[in-house]
Amino acid sequence: MDQRPAIVLLSGGLDSTTTLAIALDQGYDVHALSFDYGQRHSVELESARRVAKTMGVTKHFVATIDLRMFGGSALTDSITVPHHDRVEELQSAIPVTYVPARNTIFLSFALAWAETLAASDIFIGVNALDYSGYPDCRPEYIKAYEIMANLATKAGVEGKQRLQIHTPLMEMTKSQIITRGASLGVDYRLTHSCYDPDKDGKPCGTCDSCLLRQKGFQEAGLSDPTATNGVL
Amino acid sequence: MDQRPAIVLLSGGLDSTTTLAIALDQGYDVHALSFDYGQRHSVELESARRVAKTMGVTKHFVATIDLRMFGGSALTDSITVPHHDRVEELQSAIPVTYVPARNTIFLSFALAWAETLAASDIFIGVNALDYSGYPDCRPEYIKAYEIMANLATKAGVEGKQRLQIHTPLMEMTKSQIITRGASLGVDYRLTHSCYDPDKDGKPCGTCDSCLLRQKGFQEAGLSDPTATNGVL
Repeated sequence: MDQRPAIVLLSGGLDSTTTLAIALDQGYDVHALSFDYGQRHSVELESARRVAKTMGVTKHFVATIDLRMFGGSALTDSITVPHHDRVEELQSAIPVTYVPARNTIFLSFALAWAETLAASDIFIGVNALDYSGYPDCRPEYIKAYEIMANLATKAGVEGKQRLQIHTPLMEMTKSQIITRGASLGVDYRLTHSCYDPDKDGKPCGTCDSCLLRQKGFQEAGLSDPTATNGVL
Repeated sequence: MDQRPAIVLLSGGLDSTTTLAIALDQGYDVHALSFDYGQRHSVELESARRVAKTMGVTKHFVATIDLRMFGGSALTDSITVPHHDRVEELQSAIPVTYVPARNTIFLSFALAWAETLAASDIFIGVNALDYSGYPDCRPEYIKAYEIMANLATKAGVEGKQRLQIHTPLMEMTKSQIITRGASLGVDYRLTHSCYDPDKDGKPCGTCDSCLLRQKGFQEAGLSDPTATNGVL
């Protein structure tokens, strides 16, 4: 039997790489989609390419979209990325690294590709537990997106296709995500999490994303191969 | 009092130009957004620039996104644009000129810009009456998008902003749209409707979009300045 095609949004980070491993494990024919959106940590695209190549996806597209023209985020604008000494300092409010409508834009490109492939399945590595500050990572948002997506498409209108947005990490802690990925054989050396790497791509170790990664590995009782070995 | 900012999606065609005129007439501080998405009729972007300049918008962005990588439409792929002798030949099924998820992608960029501007209003010139073949032009789709958008954004989550998608043309026939635009002083010479123009940008006169435009002007009892004077 032919494998069902699925689109997996792949940033090259820990969460999306684990999500990709889960989609492969579930037997999907994985089409990975990444974005060059003007992010200051564009080194993550190198990770995305390594992950896609190493883990064996059918096709990997990198779409170029310039979200810098709208600004409004520390990831795309001149706003400074916050740094902290300890993970406990992270605040519960929506952080300045939030990029307006980013997941909505990413999912919309995935929807376009899904429709041309006649795929019914889109995977996104959003997570509401360990880092719930982003509005477009919450289950109610994903559910509303799914309803909209099924009204947006030709196949949805013709009743041929019931599009589903899969969020396998939604209710997992970072350490659970790492444990799951490790059990599926994910090589986390391939991934990149830092929002504010130096010019050689080396993680800063003190941004929100670095701190959550460290905490996750600690709680999973594993060592972070990137942190110990440096960037590949 | 300061004018409220609004985003208006502007293709450079008859519908979006009329929508822009309506938003200006309603007193909005208009920010126009167009897309270079690899469309074969990219001459419409020249129209969009002319319209934005002539009608006096506050800002006009043209976002470059390459939807050709996904294909699946006569507007972005090597599929032939259909031509007809008469408007009655147009079919009610979803036409090959449908671009998968196009309006969803366009609205998502508008949402990003709206959020950074703290704008609560997005205008899109979709129309369900005269040309109802596109799934992402229907009122139920727009309603679902609006619900999703209010869950996607920081302002939505914080309860500060109630985002609204305005579709002033939704229930209008093409001739009603033209009559309304003419009453607002729209110069339709600025606009471009053809899906399949020749290399000089001249409309073919026989694609779905040309035929509906002709029918609209006829029924409105007006002459099409573009058709008589050629492309500007």
